[in-house]
Amino acid sequence: KMLQRVLCTVLFMGALPSLAEVAQGHISVVLLGATGDLAKKYLWQGLFQLYMDQVSSGHSFTFHGAALTALEPGQRLMFDVLKKLACPPDESPNRCAVLKDQFLKLSQYHQLKTAENYTVLNREIETLLRQEGLKEAGRIFYFSVPPFAYTEIARHINSSCRPPPGAWLRVVLEKPFGHDLESAQQLAAELTSFFKEEEMYRVDHYLGKQAVAHILPFRDQNRQFLDPIWNRHHVERVEIVLKETVDAKGRTSFYEQYGVIRDVLQNHLTEALMFLTMELPANMSRAEEVLQSKLQAFQSLRGLEKNSAVLGQYQAYASQVQEELQKAQDYISTTPTFAGVLIHSDSLRWEGVPFLLTSGKALDERVGYVRVLFKNRAYCTQSETLRDAEHSQCKAKQIIFYIGHGALNTPAVLVSRNLFRPVMPESSWREAVGQSDLHIFGQPLSDYYVYSPVKERDAYSVLISNIYHARKDFFITTENLLASWGFWTPLLDSISHQPLRLYPGGVENQHLLDFEMVSGEVVFTLAEPVELLNPNRLMPSDYRTIQSKFRQSPLVSAWSEELISQLASDIEKTASRTVAQSGQFHLALSGGSSPVVLFQRLARHHYAFPWKHTHIWLVDERCVPLTDTESNFFSLHNHLLQNVRVPYFNVHPMPVHLNQRLCVEEDRGTELYAKEIIALVANASFDLVLLGVGTDGHTASLFPRSETGLEGAQTVVLTESPVKPHQRMSLSLPLINKARQVFVLVLGKGKHDITTLLSRVGHEPRKWPVSGVSPSSGQLVWYVDYEALLG
Amino acid sequence: KMLQRVLCTVLFMGALPSLAEVAQGHISVVLLGATGDLAKKYLWQGLFQLYMDQVSSGHSFTFHGAALTALEPGQRLMFDVLKKLACPPDESPNRCAVLKDQFLKLSQYHQLKTAENYTVLNREIETLLRQEGLKEAGRIFYFSVPPFAYTEIARHINSSCRPPPGAWLRVVLEKPFGHDLESAQQLAAELTSFFKEEEMYRVDHYLGKQAVAHILPFRDQNRQFLDPIWNRHHVERVEIVLKETVDAKGRTSFYEQYGVIRDVLQNHLTEALMFLTMELPANMSRAEEVLQSKLQAFQSLRGLEKNSAVLGQYQAYASQVQEELQKAQDYISTTPTFAGVLIHSDSLRWEGVPFLLTSGKALDERVGYVRVLFKNRAYCTQSETLRDAEHSQCKAKQIIFYIGHGALNTPAVLVSRNLFRPVMPESSWREAVGQSDLHIFGQPLSDYYVYSPVKERDAYSVLISNIYHARKDFFITTENLLASWGFWTPLLDSISHQPLRLYPGGVENQHLLDFEMVSGEVVFTLAEPVELLNPNRLMPSDYRTIQSKFRQSPLVSAWSEELISQLASDIEKTASRTVAQSGQFHLALSGGSSPVVLFQRLARHHYAFPWKHTHIWLVDERCVPLTDTESNFFSLHNHLLQNVRVPYFNVHPMPVHLNQRLCVEEDRGTELYAKEIIALVANASFDLVLLGVGTDGHTASLFPRSETGLEGAQTVVLTESPVKPHQRMSLSLPLINKARQVFVLVLGKGKHDITTLLSRVGHEPRKWPVSGVSPSSGQLVWYVDYEALLG
Repeated sequence: KMLQRVLCTVLFMGALPSLAEVAQGHISVVLLGATGDLAKKYLWQGLFQLYMDQVSSGHSFTFHGAALTALEPGQRLMFDVLKKLACPPDESPNRCAVLKDQFLKLSQYHQLKTAENYTVLNREIETLLRQEGLKEAGRIFYFSVPPFAYTEIARHINSSCRPPPGAWLRVVLEKPFGHDLESAQQLAAELTSFFKEEEMYRVDHYLGKQAVAHILPFRDQNRQFLDPIWNRHHVERVEIVLKETVDAKGRTSFYEQYGVIRDVLQNHLTEALMFLTMELPANMSRAEEVLQSKLQAFQSLRGLEKNSAVLGQYQAYASQVQEELQKAQDYISTTPTFAGVLIHSDSLRWEGVPFLLTSGKALDERVGYVRVLFKNRAYCTQSETLRDAEHSQCKAKQIIFYIGHGALNTPAVLVSRNLFRPVMPESSWREAVGQSDLHIFGQPLSDYYVYSPVKERDAYSVLISNIYHARKDFFITTENLLASWGFWTPLLDSISHQPLRLYPGGVENQHLLDFEMVSGEVVFTLAEPVELLNPNRLMPSDYRTIQSKFRQSPLVSAWSEELISQLASDIEKTASRTVAQSGQFHLALSGGSSPVVLFQRLARHHYAFPWKHTHIWLVDERCVPLTDTESNFFSLHNHLLQNVRVPYFNVHPMPVHLNQRLCVEEDRGTELYAKEIIALVANASFDLVLLGVGTDGHTASLFPRSETGLEGAQTVVLTESPVKPHQRMSLSLPLINKARQVFVLVLGKGKHDITTLLSRVGHEPRKWPVSGVSPSSGQLVWYVDYEALLG
Repeated sequence: KMLQRVLCTVLFMGALPSLAEVAQGHISVVLLGATGDLAKKYLWQGLFQLYMDQVSSGHSFTFHGAALTALEPGQRLMFDVLKKLACPPDESPNRCAVLKDQFLKLSQYHQLKTAENYTVLNREIETLLRQEGLKEAGRIFYFSVPPFAYTEIARHINSSCRPPPGAWLRVVLEKPFGHDLESAQQLAAELTSFFKEEEMYRVDHYLGKQAVAHILPFRDQNRQFLDPIWNRHHVERVEIVLKETVDAKGRTSFYEQYGVIRDVLQNHLTEALMFLTMELPANMSRAEEVLQSKLQAFQSLRGLEKNSAVLGQYQAYASQVQEELQKAQDYISTTPTFAGVLIHSDSLRWEGVPFLLTSGKALDERVGYVRVLFKNRAYCTQSETLRDAEHSQCKAKQIIFYIGHGALNTPAVLVSRNLFRPVMPESSWREAVGQSDLHIFGQPLSDYYVYSPVKERDAYSVLISNIYHARKDFFITTENLLASWGFWTPLLDSISHQPLRLYPGGVENQHLLDFEMVSGEVVFTLAEPVELLNPNRLMPSDYRTIQSKFRQSPLVSAWSEELISQLASDIEKTASRTVAQSGQFHLALSGGSSPVVLFQRLARHHYAFPWKHTHIWLVDERCVPLTDTESNFFSLHNHLLQNVRVPYFNVHPMPVHLNQRLCVEEDRGTELYAKEIIALVANASFDLVLLGVGTDGHTASLFPRSETGLEGAQTVVLTESPVKPHQRMSLSLPLINKARQVFVLVLGKGKHDITTLLSRVGHEPRKWPVSGVSPSSGQLVWYVDYEALLG
């Protein structure tokens, strides 16, 4: 009856839909949590905007606010909000006033608490539709409630409020969607038991921010310009940034459990990252293809490690937590309020391009942006003062999706004038005109083409419109959500006890939070300041390398980092000297985890290493194919060989894989390797052999009580390891002892016991094979880090 | 007598050397071309400076000007110059006046024309020394004469003017030292027949420019800061620039033969490049080691190609040449007056870093500098407006050796404040103080530490002092000279008929000479303007690659260079597409000489090639060890594999060398390779096979009437070649025909006959094995260059 009255008014005004159009069907919108903060601030306004936009779409609407509150006070609360709904500046006040009046009439409040309440709601909707003779198009349930309430509400909707066949159901969910992969999986599994994937609309409100929402359309509409340059050959770096000035005060009960990575990076910034890195499907209107492509982009992301992030916490946070959460004075929070994370994609398009995601509270400015900086490949012969922005290729080239706030204080898309004049949809983005002496990202604003939205739209209005239009590509699918958590969870786990850099907040942060990329990791630029969270931690550089004796041989000892650096230098010195003498350098390397850091250091810091004249041999190998990640050679290849220029002919993996089988005696792999050594290495005496030590005293793949390799004439042997993979190939102790130099590397607390033991025992290779290492005419040096030496 | 008088004056004044110190010995300086332009402008002043600096060194001096002019007028001319010698501003006027008086007394003029003249000069020097009772330290002969006179003068000096044993001879030579490798070798050979290497001081006056001369000391004294960053991981690019505003007017008779590359790049800019890129010896005071290291740096330079340079000529040049050299109105000069060259070093330290050498006449400003720009690896959380130069790592980081002129108008060393405060020798460089609102290289001057020389010294003064101190590392050794010509000559040859971009000169050049790096080449940024130098000449790009049919298959034809470039692109496209589809790309490559250019092109221009996912197979191999230079794999390794990043596991050389013997049937190498193919390549169907054709119609190593490989089930076969080495291993024709794509490359006049024949014959593999190439379900494309196609 009410609806009919509204429709009459509408018809009377002549500007609104005919009944034929209304025949598109009716949509019931149910807002759960109708009197909560989010609803008050954004959602009702967004629904009103939807109504204004779609009133002549052919659909009819009713709006059902719902909450736990009883009918009377709930109704009062809700209508207080509705009466304050604003008219957008671009709407005529008359039309808006009429529409607002209608919107109020189409809205009603429901208490939704018990199962019975849901049944009643469903019956009311059905009755209304029947009375008005309307076909049902669909129902939208917007969950603006805390996540703990999700499951129960979902169960009720599923059992009592599903529309009849032919009409659709859309449930809209607000984050958080879990706090790590496991909890997200659990929540997802529950929801999936009530709703089909296509019924769920998970909101990341960043996808409703106009500048973020325009990333994909921009890439699509400017393919002609971007196709040649949207790749690692042209892009120098990408920054995705959300800086806040506010802190977490008043919200620590939420924040203390989440922190900046879960709050901002895992969702908002990651979504923007995906929009930038994903491959564009040919047809962008197919939401399914867009979502699929986005999911593929996740699969190309390189895994994060502890050192992929720098983390901080503003100084006042601890006391805010103590106060708000009633914690003790000495309570230490490990929740980061600032994070800078370096992300790499291993796709062919993006390999090597750094993506820097940064967000924090209590920073010096409020601003959000996505900035793509291009490489400068030009030399401009004309002097600087004579260059002009449009033609000089020597000015910075960037594309910026400016999300809002900051110096511009509006969403915007900026493209450097020396790149191209972008294609922008005129109906929604207009070119900013007029002069400004603003500088932005190192350049005057006049160096850019600047576009801002014709109508500034709140993110929730955009999203509610997208829900109405079933644009699923603006929402987070279950797969997408789990891919994101799968990507972030290892980092979150590894940093949970990481020290945080404390910062004072605001402009006083100065350069305290600036950070740099170093060999694929990030570090703060400024050295650790005095206000360290763990001020008593000893820094490696406080110690000097100790030189003394171990088992009658020279011992070099230091903290592991410095020890590795010393060892790498010593190996290079030996290599250079040997090449100068004999023209080549035969280096035999061990597998295992300790040498990995050494390999990386050799690859990244030793440019003068005579690789061209170095032969690489293996001390031992596991009987797996060389391309198996368990293979010693595979690890050596990954961390060293693929980064330096050892000629193919000089690389000598052990022949563990012959005739399509592994380490079979009659394939004579050991003989083959022995022959190769004899053919190439003078006197079968390696210039340098690098060994490790196992906790059981094994070295190479020579294990205690091994039947082969500890003595005898055989130089290369098959052995058995107590741990998997059991079969091994190894140089023999007699061959190792022919070397001109042997370095033994021992790292970590786990090796302390064996190190102590070895310092006491004599030559007992059958018990502790490493005790048999004793080059007959060469030199032995021990490299043992403090943790192994001192425990 | 004269000398004694001077010495008395000196002693009387009490500020000058005692006789005991004079006992260090006497130095005779002979300046040949004493009245020429260079002598007038720089050399006499430099010699006077030497005298002022060294008067109390313990050496005594005489200065002998010489020329072809007769004694009387020559003397007059010379002393007119000497009288005008200036006192440096940092010298007390009194002392300078006395010293100038002495200098004049110690100087005399000689006519040096005939052999007799030289004998007389020698006798006069000997007489003087005997009369004064002085021990002879050495003789300096400074050749300030045109190069055609070198040989004769050198012969005279060698036969008549050598000092007695125990004293040294130093001959100083001025450029040009030839105009290409051959002429430089010839001149060097002549000089070497008269002088020992250690006697020759070839001047490159750039090495006397204070900022250039300080590059090595700077690197040495700042090792602690530079060691970690002076490499490809930190340096983004290096610019070595000499811009002139003057043109060649009045000097075209010289310039027309040389051009900007020979005049500036081959010598001055290349020397600066070497100072930047060479490895530093531990002890910089050993000139021998420094020179050796510099020579090694030459060996790491990647060869230049036509497209390594952009070239220009100022518009007025042609008419200046026509006028000054009495050329016809339609005379066209191909001499470049502007060049921008992109150089790469393949050393581990510099691989991938672009070095841009630029010089030209008639440009918009006069300036010279060497600029090292570092990568920005920082993200600065603090907003731009709050960053300070010293601490923010987000400001540009650069080190500039400012040679002179330009905005600074003084030699200087600039180091960005966010890099480090450099160690500078206080006695010779002082920090510039005071404010300046100058912007330089995109930053305010206040962003740099700026050092300028305590005393500005002319390059020739510096060099003459270095000759005196026998600092051979400031001069160009024969080896160094030939290495430089060896580097530049191929470029000079390849561009000798290259079109030049005409430019109006001065500020009107606008962006006409700006250029960009694209895939290892350089191109002008702005599209070709209308004013092309040779508008009627056909450019290679005017020819389109001809696409038609050959033996019923697609044919691509062009001049060889363009054909190779097309083929490389097509291979890359196939590779990318295949990797996108199946994750890997199996490429089988042939041996021989034709593919070498292709390999080089793939290595240098195809950065997007998915090498990481490519498997490299051999089509055929010679039965020689893989490290033999005859081996197909060796050539493939040298020209391609060592320059790209194909994983070790993906490289599949043919197993021709098993059990220390070559291609023995029972070692079953063919079976081994066949198994490897079957194990890794789906359906044993290669994604792409690249073949060549022999003049006898052979392809792969399948020769006419071969008993194996032309048919049958065997996929890998041993064959016999009519030429050495006779034994070969090859893929069989049936296996080749299983490929998804086969490209046949045919290059050169020598292949014209077989090409013509093949265009007529049908499928006769026993006569012409290549005629049997006919992929059963794949595609065949012929790449035949014009010479092979058209003869």
